[in-house]
Amino acid sequence: MITERLSRQIEFIVEMDKMKQIYRKNFVIGGERHETDAEHSWHLAIMAVLLAEHVDKAQVDVLKVLKMVLIHDVVEIDAGDTYCFDQQAGLDKAVRETQAADRLFGLLPDDQAGEFRALWEEFEQKQSPEARLADALDRLQPLLLHYHTQGKSWKLNNITSDKVKTRNQRTAAVAAELGQLVDEIIQDAVRKGYLKK
Amino acid sequence: MITERLSRQIEFIVEMDKMKQIYRKNFVIGGERHETDAEHSWHLAIMAVLLAEHVDKAQVDVLKVLKMVLIHDVVEIDAGDTYCFDQQAGLDKAVRETQAADRLFGLLPDDQAGEFRALWEEFEQKQSPEARLADALDRLQPLLLHYHTQGKSWKLNNITSDKVKTRNQRTAAVAAELGQLVDEIIQDAVRKGYLKK
Repeated sequence: MITERLSRQIEFIVEMDKMKQIYRKNFVIGGERHETDAEHSWHLAIMAVLLAEHVDKAQVDVLKVLKMVLIHDVVEIDAGDTYCFDQQAGLDKAVRETQAADRLFGLLPDDQAGEFRALWEEFEQKQSPEARLADALDRLQPLLLHYHTQGKSWKLNNITSDKVKTRNQRTAAVAAELGQLVDEIIQDAVRKGYLKK
Repeated sequence: MITERLSRQIEFIVEMDKMKQIYRKNFVIGGERHETDAEHSWHLAIMAVLLAEHVDKAQVDVLKVLKMVLIHDVVEIDAGDTYCFDQQAGLDKAVRETQAADRLFGLLPDDQAGEFRALWEEFEQKQSPEARLADALDRLQPLLLHYHTQGKSWKLNNITSDKVKTRNQRTAAVAAELGQLVDEIIQDAVRKGYLKK
């Protein structure tokens, strides 16, 4: 018989499969379907490995950033994906997500539950160098997908360039060159008619 | 203008989106569609964080295992997913995947291309502690999905318990308790009629 510890780890791992059935607002490139939370989280992890070097001033712990982006959205298994431009749904988001964190991380052995819970809270607070980078990537990644799907989801949801700029405004403070990249993408998206001014 | 270096990193990151359109043989739990390579890679990364502690003898570098599982399948963007039980397709797999690695990792700045290429080759060789763990997880993860979809893909492809045992036989040498888990899952799958003896 396997130990209780391994049994709890496997229960959590199986529960995580639900991340493949939570669909985000943005489309995968090609545009034929929405992206899942699992795919989004994997994409952020690849970005973290490659782009951590651009962070200004502070050294970042890449392993910590990776763990953070891998689990940053798992509360959506219970709380659902809250569209970032939906102010109404945003109102009770914190309550729904805290309850989800209690249940989901509670499946794990206590020490690992504590580690994941702390990583998730640190991500939500957006203060540490690792959380600031994870947050900037969490905004840059959908920007890339929106741009490479000719703004399909922006158009469907009537999004303007001001909203996108506001959503990405902290990126320049995290990494100057990533901030410049964001500006160039938004300008070009407006120029090409993917995004309304 | 952003640097040539960042521009190459972003080109690779955008190319990686294709991992969301490569469908594997196994189904997501619930069973309504096949799993994508991006989802599979994310799931392995979560497993690596939680299960690395079970590895016997050698200490493993978790950051290295994470990078390895995140990129272990990206060659399938060009080479396609080769079904593990398809002997015919396996014959020219190495050639197709080497050409894919040349093109895909070649998109990156040289130092990062070299790092990813080395990680992918290390994974393929299955010798280092990190590669052996990554490989064991790469076999355990679909086993969990097959079991929790009542063997849907096993039945469709006429797979027997001997084949599944052979495919997972190295796991016990990587981590004794994970090996025991594999045995218990296979036995239970046979007992429940998910998998033919």
